[in-house]
Amino acid sequence: MTMRIHGDLMSGNCLKVKWVADHLRLPYDWVPVDILTGETRSAAFRAINPFGQVPVVEFADGHTLTQSNAIICHLARGSVLVPAEAFERARMLEWLFWEQYSHEPAIAVRRFEKHFMHKADDEIEPRLFERGHLALAHMNTTLTYRDWLAGGDWITLADIALLAYTRLAHEGGFDLAAYNAIRHWIARCEPLLGLAPIADTRQVPGE
Amino acid sequence: MTMRIHGDLMSGNCLKVKWVADHLRLPYDWVPVDILTGETRSAAFRAINPFGQVPVVEFADGHTLTQSNAIICHLARGSVLVPAEAFERARMLEWLFWEQYSHEPAIAVRRFEKHFMHKADDEIEPRLFERGHLALAHMNTTLTYRDWLAGGDWITLADIALLAYTRLAHEGGFDLAAYNAIRHWIARCEPLLGLAPIADTRQVPGE
Repeated sequence: MTMRIHGDLMSGNCLKVKWVADHLRLPYDWVPVDILTGETRSAAFRAINPFGQVPVVEFADGHTLTQSNAIICHLARGSVLVPAEAFERARMLEWLFWEQYSHEPAIAVRRFEKHFMHKADDEIEPRLFERGHLALAHMNTTLTYRDWLAGGDWITLADIALLAYTRLAHEGGFDLAAYNAIRHWIARCEPLLGLAPIADTRQVPGE
Repeated sequence: MTMRIHGDLMSGNCLKVKWVADHLRLPYDWVPVDILTGETRSAAFRAINPFGQVPVVEFADGHTLTQSNAIICHLARGSVLVPAEAFERARMLEWLFWEQYSHEPAIAVRRFEKHFMHKADDEIEPRLFERGHLALAHMNTTLTYRDWLAGGDWITLADIALLAYTRLAHEGGFDLAAYNAIRHWIARCEPLLGLAPIADTRQVPGE
């Protein structure tokens, strides 16, 4: 059995896994799971992941693995996407944990509520906006003096994990116009991952 | 310079780092930082960690590292606390990411508000209680058929990271009495880490 990735392409957490598998040319079957119609809460899906979350990977031996950042660390072990030097690897993990604690819970959650639940701004917890901008400002500061988040000379899992929702931040109402270093970093990452430039719907015409 | 760990012993995230360093007999200087009096927000501390969070580790070469779970992965690399087998290592990371996303934001946050901010139960976001019990139930289910969270035959960083706040969950109003497998697991972990059994203030006399 080929590895199976259960995921929904609207989820940045699922895209991380797809991008890593594609970049490393790992064979897989993509099993689409529709979050919005509640497929992740079905009995069939809960047999695979009792938490009802995507992504989940099923390996040939029947083992399953959840948590997007744990999955990409496992798939990319020993590859060019993980620094060989121990402290750079630690720096990469620092960003991966930070992403799940301080970035995703603000930026991905606000995107979900605004873009998919169609909530108005005043129906969304105001701290999500504030916390999201704090996270973006931190990334922007780092990226003004480094090309890649983990600090080496090549893209790592830290960039891939942070790219997923940062690239879609405008769908959560976060304008990236003021974050120059982030926009340049996105433009560096996209071609390496075979991604077309994201449509920036907020760009001022003629800018 | 010896490695410096900046931390507050009331924080489970800081305790994880101390337990790993102690268990592996890594030399360090402990630099106490008082969260409650606002030392983490001082200019001196923000020069070390702009986010104003503990733990932070300063290494001999001047590099600093934040994010408790990234720190313990770095300190324990190649040690007995990290499984040699790749999939067990992935399982360990899965728990570490889950801890920061689904356990700490409920159990540690409710403990902080109740035990240190002295908030009454009705002043605390009700979802913290619900989410904390979901997390405890998941751990308890796993620990009914495994001795250690990552699935091998020895304690790993997954157990150490989850132990930190689970062992203090009663301070957040989470009664562990119904979670037998968790209580047995705590009793397995404590002597290995040189910890005295935690006072369980809710234990029924004569139980």
